[in-house]
Order: sequence, then structure tokens, then C-alpha cells
Amino acid sequence: MNVVRGARPSICGLPPRDTESGPAAAAKLGFVKVNGSNAIGLEGSGKSLGLRGGVDGGSRFVRSIKAMEDPTVSFRTDCAAISGTNLRQMSTAGNSTNIVWHKCTVDKQDRERLLQQKGCVIWITGLSGSGKSTVACALSQGLHLRGKLTYILDGDNVRHGLNRDLGFNAEDRAENIRRIAEVAKLFADAGIICIASLISPYRKDRDACRALFPEGDFIEVFMDVPLNVCENRDPKGLYKLARAGKIKGFTGVDDPYEPPLKCEIVLQQTERDCVSPSNMAETVISYLEEKGYLQA
Amino acid sequence: MNVVRGARPSICGLPPRDTESGPAAAAKLGFVKVNGSNAIGLEGSGKSLGLRGGVDGGSRFVRSIKAMEDPTVSFRTDCAAISGTNLRQMSTAGNSTNIVWHKCTVDKQDRERLLQQKGCVIWITGLSGSGKSTVACALSQGLHLRGKLTYILDGDNVRHGLNRDLGFNAEDRAENIRRIAEVAKLFADAGIICIASLISPYRKDRDACRALFPEGDFIEVFMDVPLNVCENRDPKGLYKLARAGKIKGFTGVDDPYEPPLKCEIVLQQTERDCVSPSNMAETVISYLEEKGYLQA
Repeated sequence: MNVVRGARPSICGLPPRDTESGPAAAAKLGFVKVNGSNAIGLEGSGKSLGLRGGVDGGSRFVRSIKAMEDPTVSFRTDCAAISGTNLRQMSTAGNSTNIVWHKCTVDKQDRERLLQQKGCVIWITGLSGSGKSTVACALSQGLHLRGKLTYILDGDNVRHGLNRDLGFNAEDRAENIRRIAEVAKLFADAGIICIASLISPYRKDRDACRALFPEGDFIEVFMDVPLNVCENRDPKGLYKLARAGKIKGFTGVDDPYEPPLKCEIVLQQTERDCVSPSNMAETVISYLEEKGYLQA
Repeated sequence: MNVVRGARPSICGLPPRDTESGPAAAAKLGFVKVNGSNAIGLEGSGKSLGLRGGVDGGSRFVRSIKAMEDPTVSFRTDCAAISGTNLRQMSTAGNSTNIVWHKCTVDKQDRERLLQQKGCVIWITGLSGSGKSTVACALSQGLHLRGKLTYILDGDNVRHGLNRDLGFNAEDRAENIRRIAEVAKLFADAGIICIASLISPYRKDRDACRALFPEGDFIEVFMDVPLNVCENRDPKGLYKLARAGKIKGFTGVDDPYEPPLKCEIVLQQTERDCVSPSNMAETVISYLEEKGYLQA
């Protein structure tokens, strides 16, 4: 393989001649070069695993840590770490075969301690025009003002990127929801309060999402707003298009919305009464506080 | 639509009788009930938009903020916010039509200020067994010890969830990479230092990922390790399977790896020398520090 030179010096035993790199440069940066012939190819010929190379016992990096003092996180400096001996659990998931779960020593709890909150998903479901995105936004603002990290996964926004290959037929809608739930799971694992805002009209799809999460971490919020209120708002003009037959399979018009039978929070609006988005957000925030999600 | 009762009181104008909710409960929680007939259905009959309902001028929530004092984030408490008047920009992305970009007032910069870091992706590419996951983990640890929030998207791990529907043919591999890049983009937008660790053997796929990001935010790290070193390590036993013909299209064996022509960081290992994962991580951290990603 060719030696490839990037914009930064490489760390290498056999440095390219025209860049300042390798042991000399590493030493300048405060690195301790590791001696030892081949600490890597430990498993090639059936030999048992052992640390052959030297160990860098005190890099500048480890000495200079300042921000976090978390006794549960240690920092492996040895070369044996690279041989991947803990990674032997091969598995199959769906169409993916020969894949291995890589466990990292910084885990969800570590990130939660850093953020002083618990990762979860607030799943906001309801008709188009029921105010999902508005409440998501108010909730994000309210939590941000309390120093909490949130991220909104909006059905429409995600269709501009990750889900741009998906349309609106039944299969694609289910896949849209599945992917958002999987991404929300990653965000929750990152310690973030993830706010997913999407119609998600079918109970079975939402329940499948819920099943991805540990008990309690999937917080379903139902925007309980009558169809006629949503249709009168029609902020995107979609009901008009649906009634005119220009959009097919539109939730509430010619496709059903299945309200949750049991969800964590109901935010109700009627024709007569308006509750402000900030008040609705506050209801959710009170719930999070009560359940301990705003601390770690 | 039925009134649905969740585990928490609803906010509603017409509360269900058997739960404590509606205006009374809202008042107990410090809410100010909004008067005004229909502040929502403003656009139904072609009337011009205006705020009809009363405004909740001082909810407990807004008064009780404590953690963040960010003058750039304000909190809308009015009902007009719910009508979505800023959301009129309809667009089409890929197969997704009639979608609208919802801009939220808490943006990337706000989250970056909260985290005191800048969102970006560290894209670690290289052969199977080159140490990508190990370096990703060391990097995550090193940054965590400095109080920085990271999240690892590992090719294998993501195949257990989001990408479980994908196999290893050329098309699925490209889709695997595309999705990871799109998710990494969401994480970077969330303000997180996202560490993506996957073989990503083709230059054009990696360049397509790079193109998703603002200049500078896609930091490509090449694990420059000779094939024979990776094959000797063979931590997952995959080279053995590939050589035996039990895995087809295996990168480095019967499918090419295209090393980056120009990437931000090269981490080189040779047969003779081992550089510890922590030292490699430190090189990346120095780069991030120099480029200003560890502050906001």
C-alpha cells in the first residue's frame, strides 16, 4: 500500500521523507515512542494473546486532562488494545452478517453524567397541523434554557437527508418511522433528549419504536387536536391538496390516524381553547423532571 | 376523535372527567389559561393571520429558568406560534415530496455554546483490522476526559439497528455509508463530535459524505496500516474466511481499498512499529484543538 500523506504529520515508524512525522515529530509533540517489534500481529499464527510491545505509560495527553475527573473512565494506552480481543462475538442482524458489536468504555451513563441529564426520546405523534413541530421547538427551547441538550428529529427534516430515498407509500412510511426511531435510539444512547416529531399514524409502528427502547425511555406525546382544527389551520396547505385529491393517502383524510391507547402525555387542544406551545412544553418538562430525566 | 388519557393529566379545554386536568390542573401547575375563542383556525377561511387568543405572558417555566442565560434564545409563549406561518417553504428531496423544512430557534451554535465544543465528524477509514474501532474508542475516551461529548457511529454497530436491512453488495455498502454520513451530519448538527468508524473503501463514497458537510467539519482520518499487518491481526477472523472463499468481495482480499488522496490526518502503523491507540487519539485531539473544535 502506498504511503499516503495528509495535511497533518503521520505517526509512523517509517515516515515519508518529505514531511516531518514519525518518531521525531511524535517526540516533539510529547509522544513516547513505543518500542517492540510486532505488538500487533499477535494472532496470526495461532499464538496465544499477550502484550509484546512496550507500553506508553504516560503520554502528555493523559497527564494534561483537566475537564473531567471521572473515575469510571480509564484510558488504555497499550498496543494490545488494538488487537480487538474483546470483539469476538460475531452476529447476524437482518441482512447484515459477520458483524461484531464494539463495546466502548465511554458508555451512555458516562455521557449522561457529563450532560447532567438522561438520554431518552420524546415521541410526538398527531395529525398534520396538530402542532407537533411547534411543540417540539418550544420543548427544545425550554430545555435549552435549563442547560439541557436536545435534538429534534422532525419527520420532514429527516426526509431532506437520511430518508430522502423514501416516498409516502405504506412501506416507505413504515421505513421512515423505523429509521427515525433507530436514529433516536442512537441519540438517546448519546445521552441526548431526542425529540422526534412525526405523524406516525399507526399504533403498530409506534409500538415497534417503543420496543427499541429500555422501559421508560420512550415517552409518547399525543397531540390530541380534532381533525377540523388541524384542517382549519392547514399550515402547509396539505389538507386542501388532499381534499382536492392531489395528495393520496393523507392521514385524516383518506388514511386513518390511530390515536394512542396508552401514552405518557396527552396534549389536548379543542376548537374553543388554545394552550400555548410553551405551556405544552412545560407539561412535558414537568414529566421529565418528575421521572428524573433532567439529572444524572 | 376520542379523548385519550395518558399517564399524565392532559392540558385541555374540555378535560376528561376522571382525570385532574384542564384549566384547573393547569392553574395548579402555574399555567395561565388562555382566553379567546379560536386562536388556531386562523387560516381556514382565507382570513389574514393575527393573534386572536390571549397570550400567556409569564408561565412558571419561563420564570424559573436557571441553567442557561443565553440572550440569543427566546421562548415564544403565544398561540400564533402554533399556526406554522414560517413553514410555508415546500420542497422535494429525492422521493420525498410536499415536505417542509422546520427551522427551530435553538440552533447548532446554541448547542455548541452549551457544550463548549463544535459539532463535526471524525471519519475513520481503513482496512478491516486496521484499528479503526480501537482508535475511535481511545479518541472518545480522550475527549470525554476533557469534558467533550462524542458519539461513535461504528459500521458494525449501526448494522445492528438502523442498517440491519442492508447486506454487503455494492449497492447496500454505498447505502450503508450514505446513511451513516447522514446520521453523522445530524450528530454534528447537534453539536456533538461524531466519530464514524467504517471501512468505507471507495473514494467516491467518502467524497460524497464529505460533500454533505460544511468546509472543515468532515475530518477524514486514514488508518494507514499494511494489509499483511491487518491480516495477521485478523481480530474478527474475517480475513481467514475471505481467503477461504467463505466471504466474497472482502476489502483488501477480492475487493479494493482506495486510500485517500488528500485527507486531514494519517495514522500510520507498520509491521515494525506499534503506536498506541492513545497516542493516535492524541494526534486527532491536537488537530481538533488547533482547528478550534474544542471550544465554542
